[in-house]
Amino acid sequence: MTLRGVSLIGRQDVRGTGGEIRAIDPATGIALEPAYPGATAAEVAQACELARQAFDAYRDTAPTLRAKFLEMIASEIEAIGDDLIERAMAETGLPRARLEGERGRTCGQLRLFASVVRAGEWLDVRIDPALPEREPMPRADLRQRHIPLGPVAVFGASNFPLAFSVAGGDTASALAAGCPVIVKGHSAHPGTSELVGRAVQKAIKRSGLPEGVFSLLFGSGNEIGQALVADPRIQAVGFTGSRGGGTALMRTAQARPQPIPVYAEMSSINPVFLLPEALRARGAQLAEGFVASLNMGAGQFCTNPGLVIAVKGPELDAFVEAASDAVKASAAQTMLTPGIHDAYEQGVGRLSSNDKVREVARGQVGESAHPCQAGLFVTTAQDFLAEPELQEEVFGAASLVIECADQAQVRQVAAQLEGQLTATLQMDDGDLDAAKALLPILERKAGRLLANGWPTGVEVCHAMVHGGPFPATSDSRTTSVGSAAIFRFLRPVCYQALPEGLLPEPLRDGNPWGVSRLVDGKREA
Amino acid sequence: MTLRGVSLIGRQDVRGTGGEIRAIDPATGIALEPAYPGATAAEVAQACELARQAFDAYRDTAPTLRAKFLEMIASEIEAIGDDLIERAMAETGLPRARLEGERGRTCGQLRLFASVVRAGEWLDVRIDPALPEREPMPRADLRQRHIPLGPVAVFGASNFPLAFSVAGGDTASALAAGCPVIVKGHSAHPGTSELVGRAVQKAIKRSGLPEGVFSLLFGSGNEIGQALVADPRIQAVGFTGSRGGGTALMRTAQARPQPIPVYAEMSSINPVFLLPEALRARGAQLAEGFVASLNMGAGQFCTNPGLVIAVKGPELDAFVEAASDAVKASAAQTMLTPGIHDAYEQGVGRLSSNDKVREVARGQVGESAHPCQAGLFVTTAQDFLAEPELQEEVFGAASLVIECADQAQVRQVAAQLEGQLTATLQMDDGDLDAAKALLPILERKAGRLLANGWPTGVEVCHAMVHGGPFPATSDSRTTSVGSAAIFRFLRPVCYQALPEGLLPEPLRDGNPWGVSRLVDGKREA
Repeated sequence: MTLRGVSLIGRQDVRGTGGEIRAIDPATGIALEPAYPGATAAEVAQACELARQAFDAYRDTAPTLRAKFLEMIASEIEAIGDDLIERAMAETGLPRARLEGERGRTCGQLRLFASVVRAGEWLDVRIDPALPEREPMPRADLRQRHIPLGPVAVFGASNFPLAFSVAGGDTASALAAGCPVIVKGHSAHPGTSELVGRAVQKAIKRSGLPEGVFSLLFGSGNEIGQALVADPRIQAVGFTGSRGGGTALMRTAQARPQPIPVYAEMSSINPVFLLPEALRARGAQLAEGFVASLNMGAGQFCTNPGLVIAVKGPELDAFVEAASDAVKASAAQTMLTPGIHDAYEQGVGRLSSNDKVREVARGQVGESAHPCQAGLFVTTAQDFLAEPELQEEVFGAASLVIECADQAQVRQVAAQLEGQLTATLQMDDGDLDAAKALLPILERKAGRLLANGWPTGVEVCHAMVHGGPFPATSDSRTTSVGSAAIFRFLRPVCYQALPEGLLPEPLRDGNPWGVSRLVDGKREA
Repeated sequence: MTLRGVSLIGRQDVRGTGGEIRAIDPATGIALEPAYPGATAAEVAQACELARQAFDAYRDTAPTLRAKFLEMIASEIEAIGDDLIERAMAETGLPRARLEGERGRTCGQLRLFASVVRAGEWLDVRIDPALPEREPMPRADLRQRHIPLGPVAVFGASNFPLAFSVAGGDTASALAAGCPVIVKGHSAHPGTSELVGRAVQKAIKRSGLPEGVFSLLFGSGNEIGQALVADPRIQAVGFTGSRGGGTALMRTAQARPQPIPVYAEMSSINPVFLLPEALRARGAQLAEGFVASLNMGAGQFCTNPGLVIAVKGPELDAFVEAASDAVKASAAQTMLTPGIHDAYEQGVGRLSSNDKVREVARGQVGESAHPCQAGLFVTTAQDFLAEPELQEEVFGAASLVIECADQAQVRQVAAQLEGQLTATLQMDDGDLDAAKALLPILERKAGRLLANGWPTGVEVCHAMVHGGPFPATSDSRTTSVGSAAIFRFLRPVCYQALPEGLLPEPLRDGNPWGVSRLVDGKREA
């Protein structure tokens, strides 16, 4: 499959005239062909105009057609075959098995959203029938459904070149909601992006949908992304990336004449609490599980366990020792980009040089041009509480152990944490009271609480919350993974006393779409 | 009942030392006793700290207790008796029948939210059971529910001193969600606010809830409100008022180290489309209904019909003539405050002096110190499209008729409208095609679409949407009226593999709260 090095605007290949980007193989540091010239401001506007034109027709598609379209994207991605995996390996340094798994997840995610579209929960149909005899005033017939917001800008992440990128969760949920999507392709994997973008293009063509349902733009620097978010036709933004990048888009979105929602998934250090009984009973086993989670994807997971909190004592010492041994034995993995590697080195350097922090283990150096040398550090609760910068995310396989005086101090550390995607409890039966005392604090801090597992590994399902209070995300009321992600791109509309012929189909008498409805406040499944 | 002229911070009466506010009887222009000294920054912080302390205990209340508390607030408001109505009449100039009706609506709203709390839809329980045998990887048990965001700041509106004020829709839905509430009382009706605030205080005491669940602060100027929104303990904001006021709070909320959601209901001119067959068949009747809606509450409804759009011709001329006669016969009603009266006079003055606008009728002047003299104006679609300032809300009983060349131009005008709370179609059977062509445009513009009614009158029920795209509100994904308003103050949390003893009760096996659940994506009513 030949890569053309172009942006995809509707059905057209467009070679922009902006600054070029080029993927770099992070294992070797060598730049890959082809170059991707950046789109221009006029091309951003062109993609937005096509999306605007496509919106009404696309949002009016029947659930069956829209669901089939999502499934077709999945099939087209699979049809690319090994070319996709090989290009993604070259662009990201991630191993084959991981990328094959991620492709499965990406396609499974598209198919899940197809089933979500068919089931119709996203419509949130509510019907309050007319009460013509009511005193002192009659009630009109009132019916509600959700409609899509409009064209959505999606910013792919570097760390999941398939599952959080061109046809990843943001795109899948926005398309499922009925929103056209314009993706700003991540500069770290433009070839992978072009391949997946063409798969979406093909599915649009085969489904007979308007071309403006999808565009993919490349651009070096921030101009293209900022122009996209500022365009009046864009009605919402999905983003996965750094805190700096996310907050910059939030500012742009709020400064528009019409502000729009930004769903930015940004930064999380994912505290793990080792409760006393669990630590005593299975400290060595916990150390092993912890380091395996820490090293997953060279630590480049949003849910990487960057913080371990426990009461100081011989059990914690033993855990740290076992974890240190595992870290020291950790093979270096190639990081995603030279920039991420630099940032990791700096972050680890800040920890190493902080006189309140002890470096207890570093992993292997390896031979990659951009290796992630794992790191384990220890500090006290007192110092952690006094130094807010110790909460800064170090993106990569580094983690900080916090030694607390007692469970009260464990809770104090928990209460001072910033917003998180996850919080993990390692607990045994005897830890139940300690866990109960922590739970209300952790609920206020994180979108997902887990017991006796590790935070890496985010299931794509209905109950998942991949979100959390700021700065984990920009909007704690939402999730970017799982079927509830669709609600980010919808808003309710109420129809009062509309004649049957004018009522949207899912709201008509007899429930023609067979969806779950709230009638007079009572749920009809 | 003696008014004390104090802020209510938890269970304490607090006489601040800030600038005083004093209600003015708008019918006479005379200031009313007592004076309400403004709260200080320290008192804002004190109320926020009490709210923070109350949060975990309050959010942990069982649905029955929380529901009874909401019902008790309603009973306590009713128990104030006629003192409340008389004080509200003096402070707002609104007539007795309207305020008695509004009290009924306010108490009915609290009781609706009690039923909503009991029904448990707001929990959005989702369960994806463990799949230990799944290949290649097992699935952990995943369960989701909604939890409240935290303490909420509520800014009451001037135009509904009961239903959108101290114990109005924002407060009722936030308390229903499990959030403590701090109300910044509207300076136009402090006495009414104190009376209702004491009713909430009593209900808290009788329910055995922590005092910090509710506080009521007064303050002249914007400092107190801004300090409240900036306080790190506040987690969301409900506001009903002007576009300037709402956007100022949005900026403050976004500029915090941790940005928070602001639900501001701001500005809407509520277009009414007179479709040809309806206009022909019943123009005179429409004129009558239109002017009745226009005059409701001296035009001081968020859903006031400030724009009428139709195709030019003898039928529209007849409508305008009949509406003009009705406007000319309209008795002047007292406006809510001197400030609102000034703004209305200025807004009407801008229309009168605009050479693209014809003034076709003004109502009676009356003898009130602050009368609303109704106004009807006409312009052409061409001029309306060319002058964006003609879309500015004139808060009061003034409306602008847009003469269009044809239905295509009607749609063009619709497409250029800013976001609205409502859009109304007056239509007969023969208008169905014209209505169908307008509907997709109007869905993108408004939160509620209605046929053959008038937008004033917002039912408090499950299917209601009192919301809409900016600038109608700050967040089109929400409603501030009706049971779905509760979702503004909630966020999802996912619990992964938690032992039964640690799982929140509504998520436990056997569905102990008997709520509707989404199990593996399938709805169980």
